[in-house]
Amino acid sequence: MNLQQIGDLIQGQVVGDPTLEITALASIEDAQSGELTYLAPPRKASAMAESKASAVITRELLETDKAQIICETPALAFARVLAHWYPTSKPTAGISDQAVVEEDVSLGNNITLSPYVVLSTGVRIGEESVLYPGVVVGAGCEIGANCILYPNVILYAGTVLGDRVTVHAGTVIGADGFGYTQDEQGAHFKVQHIGKVVIEDDVEIGANSCIDRAKFKETRIRRGTKIDNLVQIGHNCEIGEDTILVSQVGVSGSCKIGNQVALGGQVGISQHVTIGDRVGVMAQSGVMDDIPANTIQAGSPSLPHKDYGRSTVLIKKLPKLAAQIRELEKRLEAIENRTSKS
Amino acid sequence: MNLQQIGDLIQGQVVGDPTLEITALASIEDAQSGELTYLAPPRKASAMAESKASAVITRELLETDKAQIICETPALAFARVLAHWYPTSKPTAGISDQAVVEEDVSLGNNITLSPYVVLSTGVRIGEESVLYPGVVVGAGCEIGANCILYPNVILYAGTVLGDRVTVHAGTVIGADGFGYTQDEQGAHFKVQHIGKVVIEDDVEIGANSCIDRAKFKETRIRRGTKIDNLVQIGHNCEIGEDTILVSQVGVSGSCKIGNQVALGGQVGISQHVTIGDRVGVMAQSGVMDDIPANTIQAGSPSLPHKDYGRSTVLIKKLPKLAAQIRELEKRLEAIENRTSKS
Amino acid sequence: MNLQQIGDLIQGQVVGDPTLEITALASIEDAQSGELTYLAPPRKASAMAESKASAVITRELLETDKAQIICETPALAFARVLAHWYPTSKPTAGISDQAVVEEDVSLGNNITLSPYVVLSTGVRIGEESVLYPGVVVGAGCEIGANCILYPNVILYAGTVLGDRVTVHAGTVIGADGFGYTQDEQGAHFKVQHIGKVVIEDDVEIGANSCIDRAKFKETRIRRGTKIDNLVQIGHNCEIGEDTILVSQVGVSGSCKIGNQVALGGQVGISQHVTIGDRVGVMAQSGVMDDIPANTIQAGSPSLPHKDYGRSTVLIKKLPKLAAQIRELEKRLEAIENRTSKS
Repeated sequence: MNLQQIGDLIQGQVVGDPTLEITALASIEDAQSGELTYLAPPRKASAMAESKASAVITRELLETDKAQIICETPALAFARVLAHWYPTSKPTAGISDQAVVEEDVSLGNNITLSPYVVLSTGVRIGEESVLYPGVVVGAGCEIGANCILYPNVILYAGTVLGDRVTVHAGTVIGADGFGYTQDEQGAHFKVQHIGKVVIEDDVEIGANSCIDRAKFKETRIRRGTKIDNLVQIGHNCEIGEDTILVSQVGVSGSCKIGNQVALGGQVGISQHVTIGDRVGVMAQSGVMDDIPANTIQAGSPSLPHKDYGRSTVLIKKLPKLAAQIRELEKRLEAIENRTSKS
Repeated sequence: MNLQQIGDLIQGQVVGDPTLEITALASIEDAQSGELTYLAPPRKASAMAESKASAVITRELLETDKAQIICETPALAFARVLAHWYPTSKPTAGISDQAVVEEDVSLGNNITLSPYVVLSTGVRIGEESVLYPGVVVGAGCEIGANCILYPNVILYAGTVLGDRVTVHAGTVIGADGFGYTQDEQGAHFKVQHIGKVVIEDDVEIGANSCIDRAKFKETRIRRGTKIDNLVQIGHNCEIGEDTILVSQVGVSGSCKIGNQVALGGQVGISQHVTIGDRVGVMAQSGVMDDIPANTIQAGSPSLPHKDYGRSTVLIKKLPKLAAQIRELEKRLEAIENRTSKS
Repeated sequence: MNLQQIGDLIQGQVVGDPTLEITALASIEDAQSGELTYLAPPRKASAMAESKASAVITRELLETDKAQIICETPALAFARVLAHWYPTSKPTAGISDQAVVEEDVSLGNNITLSPYVVLSTGVRIGEESVLYPGVVVGAGCEIGANCILYPNVILYAGTVLGDRVTVHAGTVIGADGFGYTQDEQGAHFKVQHIGKVVIEDDVEIGANSCIDRAKFKETRIRRGTKIDNLVQIGHNCEIGEDTILVSQVGVSGSCKIGNQVALGGQVGISQHVTIGDRVGVMAQSGVMDDIPANTIQAGSPSLPHKDYGRSTVLIKKLPKLAAQIRELEKRLEAIENRTSKS
């Protein structure tokens, strides 16, 4: 593509030679001559000085002899060029002879069933969806259109995926929730989990994550939410729209998490906790109580972010505080001695 | 089933029309007319007021016109009805043409080997056990009767499972322990792990968990213990009976954990730690030292629960403590000035 | 083997009957008559008193009637005997009829492709490498010589493994990094990840771990590094040589970790953090800032180890500090009353 074509794609204003042929896309550091990069915070304009890129997508006109495309949101624009240039690769559509397809299955047009895929009875799959090798789909699952299930993804019976859902390799959706009740001898008696998991449109889930089925009704991940690798979501949870769960997050059962929430890596949420919209929780925090909308928490147990910051600073200063107390005791004793003598 | 049949099943006392046909089982909130629910702590009797359920299993007779079944342990009784009504589904028994079965394998009656299962040399499997697609069983493994191995479970060579063991999808049992010793150049030289993993009867293990083989002898999970998703158990550990390990727990090598212990989500245990019977460890705690029986710990590093509670409250109050110290210093200085003048 | 043969293997000095036949290798506690064990710190010489072993590898001559092999590094020597006695078992080489091999694939001599392995277009594999059942190798991947990929390992397209790389079951290498940018409606727009993962020689990776591909260039794990189970490594990370990552560690994107570093279990590292050579980070720590070489950190957020130790002791003493402050206030008030009266 040349500069003008890219400018048109992202509706940006081209500054420089519109016929410049762009050969590749790269970061500011790595870009070579002929390549396109972008400038977005936290990077400053000065970062471009050393770049070998021939063109840059930028919000403000730069003082440079490089070609530029001016647009409001350079990071988004660049991501759009990337997606256009390097669309997600998909294998040729078709149903492998080495896939097992049980009865009463409904398959949309142009789907891919790779070798060693197993579709159990009653499965439905929408058009253009791709199942990579080793994907196992339990009885009665519904998979929408344009989904991608990477190798060895497991859907337990009854799981429902919307359209454009992507699930990375090894992730398990719909395994039994972790629920037991004690019997008369103190042994753990399993509570059957007869609910299911529903994943709405445009959700992406990383590799080797687990989302458990509900006890009675459903565990639900709402539209547009993105979940990283090795994340655990317990039975009966409801995760809102456009929410971000970073790697190794653990959400206990029956939590309700709002829209546009961001949980940092390794965060843990206790069961039955409700988290409001647009909440941020810093990495490694442990959330034991509900969090109101539009707030940030950190720490284990988690606190409002400002309080956590103060406590953290003071924990570092504890040796100093202890020394201050010892000093105060000495001075006080000195005065006590003095004033009692007087 | 009608009310009387359910009452007989759980040995409860029926109050109301014994011929009432129950159409489904549900939670108090979700139950509809015709359905059965149960009342157990922390729910209070008042929770039933709004329920549309037609019948309830309860410990104490309720003032309601709904049908009731009175029994000592409503949660357990309800779990029993659930298990009767919705038994764990199993595929039709049989050995798939697309399963690979190597030599010297011993297979019990009525087992299921799904497509793409691999049984290596010398494997033994007890009657009625089910291996879902993609399960790979290493050489010489023994699997008892009535086990369920969900898709893509991996048993490394020599692993032993008792009867009625359930392992959820993607879990890996018997991979090498994480043990190296430094060579003369400072590189990590692998210590071969020639031990195995033994899982006793009635153990259930969640999805994508890992239990490593022992260095010489065995890593052992005792009868009735329940392990959640994404849990790590290191080489040479011994986990007691009827113990609970919640999701994302990590147990380092050579730990000895007692009976009826409960480790909360994301808890980490250092190597060579011994934990007594009936210990509870709160979520996200880090255990570095042995814990005596019948106690509760929390925090990282973990403390007795009461001490942790006090410290946590005081950490929140640190800004106040620091302010108190500053105030004391001012007042002390004032006195010092005053008394030294006098 | 007899004692002299073992002595020759590890270049140790035999003390006792060189023709003594060793029947097995075992720990000090478990060794039986006829068996060989070893003595290394933290074990003390007295530990041998109760052992039934017939021979021991030891650094210093022991006062015992057992046979001995004296050498500088008993743990390493014993690991070498173990590796000689129990080499990693490998299936018979050959290409299963039930493996799928796409076009333009280059296969070295003596490799093993087990049933249900899938090699996509353009894959190259070096000699003697073993792919266990269910391994799926994406387009254009390169796997060196003498690699072992345990069941259900997934390599996304373009992944590169060096020689003698071992990857345990269920691990996923090369899945997309977790990168999104917000679009005009506040939805998360996926940033295509066009980089790859490179794993150098002699790396071993545990079970169910995840290593994400880079955004543009590569995520790289350098020679000799050992990674445990359930570990997450984000996009664009660079992990040094001979480094140790214990189970459930999470490394965010774009981190640079040095050589001979050790990260304890469940440690989390924030994105863009640089960690110097020979750094140690204690289990469950959370690292938010760069760490200089040759230091140890602990805590979340992490501190230099000494500071962490002091703060931890003081956190336990917080109730006492609070009591001291209250006592100081009382004493001060008493003096204030006294001195103002005077």
